[in-house]
Amino acid sequence: MRSFALSVLREPPFTGAQHDDTEAVARESEDWAQRLGLINNGQRLRRADAAGLASRACPQAPRDRLRLLSDLISWLFVMDDACDEDGLGSDPTRLAPTVAALLDVLDRHGEPGAAPACGPLGPALADLCRRVRVYRRPAVLLRFTAAMREYLLALLWEAANREHDRVPPVHEYVQMRRHTGGVFPSLTLTDLALDGFPPAERRADPQWAALDLLAANLICWCNDVFSYRKEHRTGPDAHNLVTVLSAETGDETAGMRAAAARFNHELGTYLTTESDLLAQHGEAVRPALATRRNWIRATYDWSLAAERYA
Amino acid sequence: MRSFALSVLREPPFTGAQHDDTEAVARESEDWAQRLGLINNGQRLRRADAAGLASRACPQAPRDRLRLLSDLISWLFVMDDACDEDGLGSDPTRLAPTVAALLDVLDRHGEPGAAPACGPLGPALADLCRRVRVYRRPAVLLRFTAAMREYLLALLWEAANREHDRVPPVHEYVQMRRHTGGVFPSLTLTDLALDGFPPAERRADPQWAALDLLAANLICWCNDVFSYRKEHRTGPDAHNLVTVLSAETGDETAGMRAAAARFNHELGTYLTTESDLLAQHGEAVRPALATRRNWIRATYDWSLAAERYA
Repeated sequence: MRSFALSVLREPPFTGAQHDDTEAVARESEDWAQRLGLINNGQRLRRADAAGLASRACPQAPRDRLRLLSDLISWLFVMDDACDEDGLGSDPTRLAPTVAALLDVLDRHGEPGAAPACGPLGPALADLCRRVRVYRRPAVLLRFTAAMREYLLALLWEAANREHDRVPPVHEYVQMRRHTGGVFPSLTLTDLALDGFPPAERRADPQWAALDLLAANLICWCNDVFSYRKEHRTGPDAHNLVTVLSAETGDETAGMRAAAARFNHELGTYLTTESDLLAQHGEAVRPALATRRNWIRATYDWSLAAERYA
Repeated sequence: MRSFALSVLREPPFTGAQHDDTEAVARESEDWAQRLGLINNGQRLRRADAAGLASRACPQAPRDRLRLLSDLISWLFVMDDACDEDGLGSDPTRLAPTVAALLDVLDRHGEPGAAPACGPLGPALADLCRRVRVYRRPAVLLRFTAAMREYLLALLWEAANREHDRVPPVHEYVQMRRHTGGVFPSLTLTDLALDGFPPAERRADPQWAALDLLAANLICWCNDVFSYRKEHRTGPDAHNLVTVLSAETGDETAGMRAAAARFNHELGTYLTTESDLLAQHGEAVRPALATRRNWIRATYDWSLAAERYA
């Protein structure tokens, strides 16, 4: 899908950059995942390139905060693999105990507690929460745990669809994809890394809320278009924008074009919304806007790079 | 279960009271539900007595804020009925479009938008969000929408269990019940009503987080013990503390006693945690503690009263 994606997706007009410490952080994240038992060998995680994505999302962050984001993305990749691979993600009643145990971990907000009964994912998530807690930004910690809760609960939706071989309607998919994609916890830790976390009064501003949804859509859809063929090779995944649009139009080529058209249109809306916010709030919102720009550009560049190894 | 519940549950040692405007608010909430098409006639909602629960939860609140809570509880009762009755709640793939449409409503944070495709529940939820927005407390609004999102997503877990006739393990049930019970959105609007909303730095405090979980457990479990027989008459519901404990012990009487013992033990822990918080933070936390005390006592008294009509 690389050449197709390249030919149809509008390139996000934001500067792309990568953190100087990418390689070192990649090694550290891999060590972390191995030490906590998330992976047996690093090969697969290396190919997924969590650090590459994180380092594009916050090219100027302090090293420890970049590392935290890179570890979160690694964790999300491992969770994704666990769902894809041993059938956990296609049986909501098998997935539920793991989800509940991970929700227990989130309820501790990074404080020590009894070991959760869900294998290495639990202690690793507890470690992430503990490290978010260290920055003493309670609003960031609460936002992070809330976003992770929504991500975990939304996985049950995916599992029910897989169990029923159900392709969700486009409108439903668009809403749920924002949660299953793990975008909001990732944006939260990037806001932390770049000191761009918007205060509550801004986040409840209708324009701000709209911008966050637009950014999340762009990140998820870009990923969907780039990864479609790859996912398709191992059996079509219902949870891809191309799939749900193809099901609605009855035609894969039309679905692919419709997905690209949605991305391009959403990018236009994003740029307008961003200008309006800047005009209204001025420099105060720049760090938070940078987080979102970085993520949109990062997903695009990382998807291109990841394709090389696909 | 009334006499059993009365004989085994420790009475919450908090003063119970009811708002002077209960009856008027009950009529207004019923009118609201009827005007928005949530109900055809008020009889059933009247029996459920949303206003009675709300007015016990905030006996000293300004009338408009009590009304907002009463309308939210009415909305939750109607959603609950919709799930119970026409099979929506026992088929995750049928429930998912409604959940997604309601999540769309929450994403607007009370701003006007296109009519959601989920019947009267959508516009009614939009109305609730709009009215929370009016108080210009963005942190409260964000907390409310986040708590509602978790509630809605957790309904998909219930639906998957019902579809599979699955009784969840106790540990999983305890975690998920806090979300499916709609406790957190209700606490949030009660904090708003009593001006007790704790700031982020307090809510991420480990003791505070613990208190919130304890309060939510007490509210849910009290409701479970009182309603067990009633639910049991129309076929056992897997989503009741007595059911999950009975399944684990293999014995209904043991399950009932174990549920009561859990409640009583949790109440003791709650009282200790509350004292510690008061000693540490002083008068500043009193309004937020009152919200939680009120809710625990309100659930107990309301369950007793509701039983009279059961």
